[in-house]
Amino acid sequence: MEAITINKHTQRSRGRPKQAKDDLSIQEVIIATASKLFLEMGYETLSLHEIAKACNVSKPTIYYYFTSKSELLKVAIITMLKNVHRNTMRLLNETDNVEAGLILVAEARIASPHIKVEMLLKEAESSLSEEQLQQIRDAEQRVYLLLSDFFQAAMDKGLLRKDDPLFLAYTFSTMLLISNREDTMHLHASHLELAKKVVGLFLKGTLA
Amino acid sequence: MEAITINKHTQRSRGRPKQAKDDLSIQEVIIATASKLFLEMGYETLSLHEIAKACNVSKPTIYYYFTSKSELLKVAIITMLKNVHRNTMRLLNETDNVEAGLILVAEARIASPHIKVEMLLKEAESSLSEEQLQQIRDAEQRVYLLLSDFFQAAMDKGLLRKDDPLFLAYTFSTMLLISNREDTMHLHASHLELAKKVVGLFLKGTLA
Repeated sequence: MEAITINKHTQRSRGRPKQAKDDLSIQEVIIATASKLFLEMGYETLSLHEIAKACNVSKPTIYYYFTSKSELLKVAIITMLKNVHRNTMRLLNETDNVEAGLILVAEARIASPHIKVEMLLKEAESSLSEEQLQQIRDAEQRVYLLLSDFFQAAMDKGLLRKDDPLFLAYTFSTMLLISNREDTMHLHASHLELAKKVVGLFLKGTLA
Repeated sequence: MEAITINKHTQRSRGRPKQAKDDLSIQEVIIATASKLFLEMGYETLSLHEIAKACNVSKPTIYYYFTSKSELLKVAIITMLKNVHRNTMRLLNETDNVEAGLILVAEARIASPHIKVEMLLKEAESSLSEEQLQQIRDAEQRVYLLLSDFFQAAMDKGLLRKDDPLFLAYTFSTMLLISNREDTMHLHASHLELAKKVVGLFLKGTLA
């Protein structure tokens, strides 16, 4: 073990956990594990003790990285939203075709529906501070803005009718929650098939 | 008080509550109060004791009408879905114009969004029996079938493009969950304005 010079001026109130060979990777394990457990079990019923156990770390280790359970939830949700942002950007850049790009995004969202994150957030809302909620909303808004920019670009090229691009971003994202309904109904053979139908309706509407 | 002949073959294990002047109205009060409380507080955290207190009846009175908390939840959700069904039918019959009918339905749904019912159901899912869940899904499906029939009729008249009418019913219902997002965003001046925009997109799509 290397010698550590303790600096009393740092904000840490507890020592660095012994397990921490690589700060980032332990932190990432905690975030990934907590995300999975929060989505499965909800906020209230899940304890930091259970999260620590599932990560194979001690509870103080979790407190070393996160000041509270609500802070861990905030970071977990923001991390999920950052992943959605990164994936959406990657998928939209894969093709120059508007319809093809939207189908890629739709297929990915249908495969891992956002409704569970929204439900988790609703449940935990009263446990989060106004500042924490605002940080989550900002991360969410960045995903909408990405889609909004995509729609604006398509309007500028004359491919889509002029409209409020942010409204299109909200509507398109909302339509993708259909998988939540379809899961129960088993109407469509695959995520891709459902994605194509939803994007078709979004682009062409339903009028004869 | 009228004389009651006790029939040992009936399923009632408890006597009729003394407060019950009118069976239907006490039962309705319990259902309405429980619906409101379940939507506000969720399933797990709410106790039958609290429901009884809010209804101003005793806990045995609740058990007289409902065998368990899960049964009360089931009846509450099905009653909400029956109200949605009745309102949707009434609104769709108010006009012969497809767009006007959809705007009326959209405005009503945006005003009282279904997402809270869906979240309540998700939370309580593991506490409900397969039979109770199926009864709820059947009541939900009847609302979709109503919309589906409406879309089928519009297709038969040549007003909408031929498509799976049930898919249109799911998609339209899903799009109306946008109010959940919009509530935070305050983009639209009124429910009617938002309803018109969503129905416009549903009918005309977004292509230039």
